[in-house]
Amino acid sequence: MQYVFSFNEGDGKDKQLLGGKGANLCEMTQIGLNVPPGFVISTATCLKYLEKKELPKSLMKQVKQQIDDLEQKTGKSFGKGHNPLLVSVRSGSAMSMPGMMDTILNLGLNQKTLPALIKQTGDERFAYDAFRRFIQLFGKVVLGIGDERFDLEFSKVKKQAKVSKDVELSAKHLKKISELFLSVVEQETGEPFPEDVHVQLELAIQAVFKSWMGKRAIDYRREFKITPAMANGTAVNVVTMVFGNMGNDSATGVAFTRNPATGENTLFGEYLTNAQGEDVVAGIRTPKPVMEMATEMPEMYCQLVDLRDKLEAHYHEVQDFEFTIEKGILYCLQTRNGKMNTTAMVRTSVEMVNDGLISKKDAIKRVKAESLDQVLHPCIDPSHKATPLATGLAASPGAASGQCVFDADKAELLGRAGKKVILVREETKPEDIHGFFASQGILTSRGGKTSHAAVVARGMGKACVAGAEGIEVDVVKRQAIIGDNVLNEGDIITIDGGTGAVYLGELPMIEAHFSTELKTLLSWADEYASLKIMANADTPEAALQAKEYGAMGIGLCRTERMFNASERLPVVVDMILANNLEERQHALDLLLPMQREDFKQLYTTMSPNSVTIRLLDPPIHEFLPNEKTLEAELTILAKYREDLQGKRIVCNTLPLLNHSLSLSNDQLAGLDKEVDTVDATIAKKQQMLQKVRELFEVNPMLGHRGVRLGMTYPEIYVMQIRAALEAEAECIKEGIEVHPELMIPQVCTAHELMPIKENVDAIKKQVENYYGIELNFKFGTMIEVVRACMRSKELAGIAEFFSFGTNDLTQATFSFSREDAENKFLPLYNEMGILQDNPFEVLDTLGVGRLMKLSVEWGRKVRPDLKVGICGEQGGHPQSIEFCNKIGLNYVSCSAPRIPIARLAAAQAAL
Amino acid sequence: MQYVFSFNEGDGKDKQLLGGKGANLCEMTQIGLNVPPGFVISTATCLKYLEKKELPKSLMKQVKQQIDDLEQKTGKSFGKGHNPLLVSVRSGSAMSMPGMMDTILNLGLNQKTLPALIKQTGDERFAYDAFRRFIQLFGKVVLGIGDERFDLEFSKVKKQAKVSKDVELSAKHLKKISELFLSVVEQETGEPFPEDVHVQLELAIQAVFKSWMGKRAIDYRREFKITPAMANGTAVNVVTMVFGNMGNDSATGVAFTRNPATGENTLFGEYLTNAQGEDVVAGIRTPKPVMEMATEMPEMYCQLVDLRDKLEAHYHEVQDFEFTIEKGILYCLQTRNGKMNTTAMVRTSVEMVNDGLISKKDAIKRVKAESLDQVLHPCIDPSHKATPLATGLAASPGAASGQCVFDADKAELLGRAGKKVILVREETKPEDIHGFFASQGILTSRGGKTSHAAVVARGMGKACVAGAEGIEVDVVKRQAIIGDNVLNEGDIITIDGGTGAVYLGELPMIEAHFSTELKTLLSWADEYASLKIMANADTPEAALQAKEYGAMGIGLCRTERMFNASERLPVVVDMILANNLEERQHALDLLLPMQREDFKQLYTTMSPNSVTIRLLDPPIHEFLPNEKTLEAELTILAKYREDLQGKRIVCNTLPLLNHSLSLSNDQLAGLDKEVDTVDATIAKKQQMLQKVRELFEVNPMLGHRGVRLGMTYPEIYVMQIRAALEAEAECIKEGIEVHPELMIPQVCTAHELMPIKENVDAIKKQVENYYGIELNFKFGTMIEVVRACMRSKELAGIAEFFSFGTNDLTQATFSFSREDAENKFLPLYNEMGILQDNPFEVLDTLGVGRLMKLSVEWGRKVRPDLKVGICGEQGGHPQSIEFCNKIGLNYVSCSAPRIPIARLAAAQAAL
Repeated sequence: MQYVFSFNEGDGKDKQLLGGKGANLCEMTQIGLNVPPGFVISTATCLKYLEKKELPKSLMKQVKQQIDDLEQKTGKSFGKGHNPLLVSVRSGSAMSMPGMMDTILNLGLNQKTLPALIKQTGDERFAYDAFRRFIQLFGKVVLGIGDERFDLEFSKVKKQAKVSKDVELSAKHLKKISELFLSVVEQETGEPFPEDVHVQLELAIQAVFKSWMGKRAIDYRREFKITPAMANGTAVNVVTMVFGNMGNDSATGVAFTRNPATGENTLFGEYLTNAQGEDVVAGIRTPKPVMEMATEMPEMYCQLVDLRDKLEAHYHEVQDFEFTIEKGILYCLQTRNGKMNTTAMVRTSVEMVNDGLISKKDAIKRVKAESLDQVLHPCIDPSHKATPLATGLAASPGAASGQCVFDADKAELLGRAGKKVILVREETKPEDIHGFFASQGILTSRGGKTSHAAVVARGMGKACVAGAEGIEVDVVKRQAIIGDNVLNEGDIITIDGGTGAVYLGELPMIEAHFSTELKTLLSWADEYASLKIMANADTPEAALQAKEYGAMGIGLCRTERMFNASERLPVVVDMILANNLEERQHALDLLLPMQREDFKQLYTTMSPNSVTIRLLDPPIHEFLPNEKTLEAELTILAKYREDLQGKRIVCNTLPLLNHSLSLSNDQLAGLDKEVDTVDATIAKKQQMLQKVRELFEVNPMLGHRGVRLGMTYPEIYVMQIRAALEAEAECIKEGIEVHPELMIPQVCTAHELMPIKENVDAIKKQVENYYGIELNFKFGTMIEVVRACMRSKELAGIAEFFSFGTNDLTQATFSFSREDAENKFLPLYNEMGILQDNPFEVLDTLGVGRLMKLSVEWGRKVRPDLKVGICGEQGGHPQSIEFCNKIGLNYVSCSAPRIPIARLAAAQAAL
Repeated sequence: MQYVFSFNEGDGKDKQLLGGKGANLCEMTQIGLNVPPGFVISTATCLKYLEKKELPKSLMKQVKQQIDDLEQKTGKSFGKGHNPLLVSVRSGSAMSMPGMMDTILNLGLNQKTLPALIKQTGDERFAYDAFRRFIQLFGKVVLGIGDERFDLEFSKVKKQAKVSKDVELSAKHLKKISELFLSVVEQETGEPFPEDVHVQLELAIQAVFKSWMGKRAIDYRREFKITPAMANGTAVNVVTMVFGNMGNDSATGVAFTRNPATGENTLFGEYLTNAQGEDVVAGIRTPKPVMEMATEMPEMYCQLVDLRDKLEAHYHEVQDFEFTIEKGILYCLQTRNGKMNTTAMVRTSVEMVNDGLISKKDAIKRVKAESLDQVLHPCIDPSHKATPLATGLAASPGAASGQCVFDADKAELLGRAGKKVILVREETKPEDIHGFFASQGILTSRGGKTSHAAVVARGMGKACVAGAEGIEVDVVKRQAIIGDNVLNEGDIITIDGGTGAVYLGELPMIEAHFSTELKTLLSWADEYASLKIMANADTPEAALQAKEYGAMGIGLCRTERMFNASERLPVVVDMILANNLEERQHALDLLLPMQREDFKQLYTTMSPNSVTIRLLDPPIHEFLPNEKTLEAELTILAKYREDLQGKRIVCNTLPLLNHSLSLSNDQLAGLDKEVDTVDATIAKKQQMLQKVRELFEVNPMLGHRGVRLGMTYPEIYVMQIRAALEAEAECIKEGIEVHPELMIPQVCTAHELMPIKENVDAIKKQVENYYGIELNFKFGTMIEVVRACMRSKELAGIAEFFSFGTNDLTQATFSFSREDAENKFLPLYNEMGILQDNPFEVLDTLGVGRLMKLSVEWGRKVRPDLKVGICGEQGGHPQSIEFCNKIGLNYVSCSAPRIPIARLAAAQAAL
C-alpha cells in the first residue's frame, strides 16, 4: 500500500487523501512551479496509526525512499554533510484548521548538521536560533515537555545577559540556550535529544498524527461542525527547508499577483534580501516593495513575473503567494486566492476577462453582489479609532458627517447655504421630507428599519441610523442628550449607516466610486440575467438616479410621497379634514394637476421603460401631525392667545392713564389681527386634533389603508387614476413612449379590484376621447396581504400583473410588526438561531417565499403571461433575488442604490 | 297534447310544469286529503300562450271536460242551478312570487247563480259582497279597468249610506254597488259584464297567463334573481270554491299540527263557524281556539285530527294549514311547513322522532344550529316598544337589566348585596374581571367585538354591548352622558347583546331554557358528529358551565386570565417590573402554587376529559394600567402629596401660635406615615409608567407576545409548565384521570418549539421523580401565525396537536386589525358585497380556510395521527364548523354558551 506520495505524483485534487496543504503542494509542483521538494503522508495513514497506535510497517521504508529522492533532487544530505537537508514536518487535513495541529521546522538539525548550517549561512546566531527553536518545538510536540521548562531557561539566560528583548541575544547566548534546552530534554525524558535524524522524523510524524485527536483539534472540529465526511485524519507534509538568508542572492517575500486594494494589474507585495520570513514579522528591517526587485535582482524579478503568470494562468484568480529565494533559486512556498476589496474584485474581474483568463460568466460569479454596497456608498475609513457616542440600527448604508440640526426647516436653511448637515429627530414624518433632501444623513432616536426615516433614506441612498435609543432629542432646547454628553445644534457628528454607529466630530471617509469597470461588469450581468431590475422611485430626481444605476423602469412609485411637498401637504390636510364629498372633491381637484405633472415627469425620465404607479397606500393619519405634537402646539397657542389678550387689556387701559407706552391705532389693529390669525390657527389645529383622535388605530399596520381607503373614499383613487392616464395622454401627444402600470395596494379579494377596474375603464374612455389618442397601460395589484396569495387565481382574472410587497407580506406572515420586532425580540431570535436572518432584510423563503411560490403558480394558471415582480426591500438582496429568479418572477424592484447589487445578483441567479 | 291536469292526476313533484301551488294541490289530493276538487293548467300552456298570443286550440275543450268532471264530483252546476259551482282561478309558478300575479275568486257568479248563492247561504249581504268583489277583480284583472273607477262608486254609496266602515254596509248597499259596478264595466268596455261563465273562465285564464309578463312580476323576478331555469311561466289553478258560511255546519279556520310556540303536540289554531276566511282577518268576530271544536263540532274535530295525522304522516313536518267546513265536509285548502320558534323546533323534532314520524338524523337536520342561541340566552320580549338610548356592537348575545355602575369594585359590592348590575366602562381591562362576575351584563363605549370586554363576556355567556360610541363615561362624576341624557350610577338600564341596543329602564325578558328535549336532541347529535366539541374556558366556574353544556373537554384555557384575580395581579405586576431574573423568579415562585391549584381544579372538573393549557399569550403590558391612567393617577397623587405637605407645614407653625387647631403628636405621626405611604405609591406608579412606556408597541397585535415572551423570558413558561405538570401529578396521586395538553401560542417556526420542548421534557422527568408517578400529556402548538401554516410539516415533527387560532390567523391573513376594521371599514365591505360575512364571526374558508387546509395536509404528512382543532371564535359558528368537518379537523373549541350550537352543527356537518 502506498502511504507516501512525492509532490510530483500526488493527486492535486484529492484533498481528502492528501489534506488541503498536501494537495496544494502537489498541484503547484505539477504545474511547474518551483516548490521546495517534498512528499505527503496520506490521511489514511493517520487513521491507520490512530487505530493501531503504531505506524504501518512499511511506512518508514517508503519515507526513507522519499528522503533519498529528496537528497538526490536537492543535492543535500539528510543528517550529515556540508549541505544538510533540513525539512519541515507539517500537518494538513482536508479542511483548514489553522493552528489546531502541530508543525515542526528545521528537522534534521543535530550536532553534525548545525556547524554546516552555520557555515552555509555564515550566520551563527541564525543557526543557533533555529536549533534552539527546533529543540523546544520537538521537545514540546514530540516529547511532551511543557513550554515553561524551556521558557525558564531562556529567561535565565536573558537575565544574565541583561537584555529585555529576544532579538538582543547574541549567537553566544543562543548557543548557551541550545545547550540548556538539550539538558532539559535529557532531564525530562531521561534520554538525550535524538541525534538520529530518521528517528527525529519518525517521532515527528507520529506526533503530527496524534495531534489530530488532540483536545484543541477536537474542540475546533466540534465548534466549526467539521464532520468526518468533511475531513478525516491529517496528512503529514515533509518539505525541504529553503533559506532566504543564505547571502545576498537569497531573499524572502509575499506578494499578490495584482493589487488587492485597487485591482491594478501589477505585482504587489514586499520582500527582504538575505532574510527569513520571520524577519518581516519581527519588524527589525523594513521590507521593500516587490517592484524594487526589478532593479535590485532583475533576474529574480523575471522569475517572479514568470511565477505570477503561471499562477494566474492556472488558478484563474488573483493569487496571494509566499516565496523564498535560496542562492538565486526562487521557490514558491504557498499560494492561495487573494483577498481583495470590492473595487479590486470588480476591476480584476473585468481585466481578467479582457486578458482571456476568465469568461464573462466567471467574472460575474466572482464578485459578491452584496459587496458592491461598499463601493456605492461613502464609508468611514476603517483605520479610524473613534469610539461611538451611541449606536442605533444600521438603517441605510453609507456614512456621513455634518452639523447636527433638529428640524427639517433648519436643515433646509443650512443645506441651501452649502453646509453639510445631519438631521437628528426623535422620529421623522412625511412633512420632514425637505429636510431629507438637504441633509447628508439622518439620525433618529426612535423607530426601526422600516420607520419613515429608514425607508425614505434608503430610497434616497442617504445614510441613516435609526432607533438610536440612547439619544434624547430636545427640539425646544436644540439639544440632544447622549448619556452624559450634550450635543448642541451645529456640533459636527458622523454617522455610519452601515453599522449604526454615531460619532462625535468628522471622521475620515472613503468616497463612493461607480467605476468604468463596474459599468462593464454590470452590462455583462444584464446579458445573462432573466430578471429585470426595476427601481422603487417616487420623484423625478430619484428616477434619474435609478436610471443612472441601470434601472430598467420603475417598479414602485409611492404616490403618497408626492403629497408631502410643502405646497401640497396643506391641500392633502384639507382633503382629510373634509366633512363631505364636496369639500374632499375640491381638495382633490387641486391635487390632480400636480399629480399629473409628477407622473408626466416620471414617464418622461424613464421613457421608454415602464413606470408602476401605486395608488395611495398609507393610513391618512400619516399626513397629520401626531396627537402629542398637536396637543403641545395647542397649549403654546393658548398661552400666546392669552398673552395677546393681556396685552390688549393693558392697551385698553393705558391710554386712560395717559401712559407713554400706549400703542398707536395701527399697532392696536395689528394686535387684533394677530388675535384673529391665532384663533384661526387654533381652530384648524383643534380640527386636526379631533381628526387624529378619530383616525386613531390600535394596529395601524393592519388598519384603514391601501385599497380600503380606495373603497371608502373612491374619489381619491379616481383622482390618481385620472392623473396617471392624463399624463400618459399628454406624453403620447408629445411623442414620448410611455408604459404606465396602475397598481392597487393591500388588496385581499378580487372584489376590491372590480370597482376600481370599472373606474379605470371609464376614465380611460373619457381620456381617450378628450385627447383623441389610444392609451396603453397595465392594471395590476400588490400582493402583500396573505389572503391575496390565497386568492391569486381570482386576482389574476383581473390583474395583469402582481407585485409582491414583501415588507407587509413578511409582517403578516410572521405576525411581526417590524418596528416592534426589531427593537424587542428579533435580535434575540437571530442570536438564538430561531431565525437565520432578519426576514425584513433577507426574504424568508421558507414561509413568505412559499406563499409567493403558490401565488405565482395559482395566478399563472389563470393568466399564463402574468407579469410578476417584487417591490419589497428584500428585492435588493442577492439571496432573495436568487429565490425570485427560481420561482420565475419577471422583475425585482428596489431602491436606486441597490440596483447595481440587484443587477449582479440577478445574473448570478440566472447562471 | 295534455294542457290540463286534474288534482287527481297531476304529478305532485313536478313544480316546473304545475307550479308550486298546483303541484301541492295535486299532492294533497292524491294523499287522500279532502281538497276542494279542481285542476291545473300547465306552465307550458302559459309559455305557448305568451308566444302565440292565443290559447292553444284544444285547451278550452280540455278545460270544459274538467269542469264537467267538477260538476260531477261536487254535484254543483257551473253557471246555473240552485247549487252553483263557483271556482277560484289562481296563478302559481315554480317559485313562490307572493302577490305578484293575479287571482280571481268566485268566478261563476252571474245573474243566475247569484240568487242561488243567496238561498244557499241565507246571507244576502255575503252574496252581494262576493259578487261586487268578483266584478271588481274581474274588471281589473281581466278587463283592465282601474280600481279607482270602482272605488269612486263604492265611496259614493258609502257616503249616501252615511257609514264610514265597509262592514257597516247592508246587503241593500252592496247590491246597489254590484249594480253600479256592472254599469262601470259596461261603460268602460262598451259591453256588458260577461254572463257566460265559460267566457268568464277563458278570459280569466288568459289574464293570469298575461300577468306572468306583468311589470310587477318581471321586476320581482329581477330583484330576486329568479331565472327561467328556476321558474318559467305560471300555471293556472282552477279550484272549486267552498264556503264556510253555509250555516252552522260550516266553518273556516287555520291551524298548526303542533303548537308553533312551544312545540307541544296538540292542534293549535283558530276557527269561526258559519264564516268566511276574511271574517277572521276583519276582526269583527273573535275566532275560537280549534280545541273548542272538540265540544262544539265533535265530528268535524275528528276530521280535523284525521287531517292533522295525514299531513304529518306525509310531510314529516309540522304543518301550517287552512281549512274550510262546508255543510259538514272538511276541506283542506292549503298546507305548508309551519314556521316555529326554536323551542318548538327542538321539542317537535324530538317528539316526532319518538312518534316515529322522522328519524334522528332528520331531527338533527331540522333545527338550525345557530337558532339555539335564542333559547340559550335570555332575550328582550320582542313585543316591547322601547327606543334605544344608544346602540353599540352586538358583542355577546343575551339581554340583561340592572343598575348601571361605573367600576368593577362597585359592581362587586352591589352584586354581593344581591343587586342586579350592568358594568358600564369606557373599556375594560383584565383587572376588571371581578366586576364581570358580579354583573348581569357589560356595556363599553370603546372597543370592538374582540375587545377585552367582548371576549370575556362571551366566554362567561354574559350579555355585552361594546363600542357604544355615543356614550361618554365619566367615572369621576359617576355619570354616563348619552347625547342629552345623563345616566347616573344606580339608574336601571337594559342592554341587548344580540342587537347592540341600550335602553333606559327594565324591559320585559324571556328567560333562557335548556330543555330536556334540547338535551335529547344534542345527545343524538353527539352520536353522529365526527368533530368533538371542546370549550374555551379559563376558570373552574367556566369549566363547570361548559361541562353542563356538553363540552367534551377544554380546548383552550387562557392561562393569563388566571393572573388577573385581585390577589395575583400585584405579583404579576412585580414580575413585569422585575429588573433582573432573580426578582422575576421570586414573583414567579409566588405564582406557581396558585397556578398549580387552578390547573388542578380545572383537571378535576373536566376529568376524564382533556384540558388544553395555552401558555401566556398577551403582551405583558396588558397587565399594567394604561399610560394615560397612570399619568392621571400620578397627577392626583402629587397634588395629594402637596396637600399633605402643606398641612404639615401648617401643623408645624400652629403650635407656635398656640392655635387651638394644632394636632396631637399621634396625629402628626399619622400624617408623616401617610406621606411615606404616598411616596411609596408614587414611586411604584412611576416605575409602572416607565415600564408601560418601555413596553409601548406600534402594532401590539403583531408584537412581543406569545412564544416570543417564552423565548425572551423562558422562566415564565417554565413556571407554567411546572404548574401544569405538578397539578397532573397531584391528580394522579388522588386517583383522578386527567389529560393535560400544553399549547404554545404565536409560534412561527419549529425552532421556537424546540427549546420549550426541552424544558418540558426536563420538568417532566423532575416531576415524575418527585411524585413517583408517570405523567401522560400532549405537547402542541397554536397555528395562528400564517408562517406556522407554511411550516406545518416542521411543526408537526414536534407538536402532537395543532389548534388553529382563527382570530389571530384571520387578522394576519386579511391584514385587518379586528378592532380597527370593525369600526372603520368592515361594515362597508359587507354592505358593498366585497366580503360576504364578517370573517371574524364566520370563518373565511376561501382565504383562512385554504391556509388551514394546506396546514392540515402538510402536518399529517409527517404525523398522520396529528390531532387538529380550532379554538378561534369562529369555532362556534355552524358554517365554520361545517368547513372544519370537511377538512378533517378533530375538534372545535368555543365559548361555553356556543357549545350546544356547535354540537348540533357538528352533527349536521357530518350528516
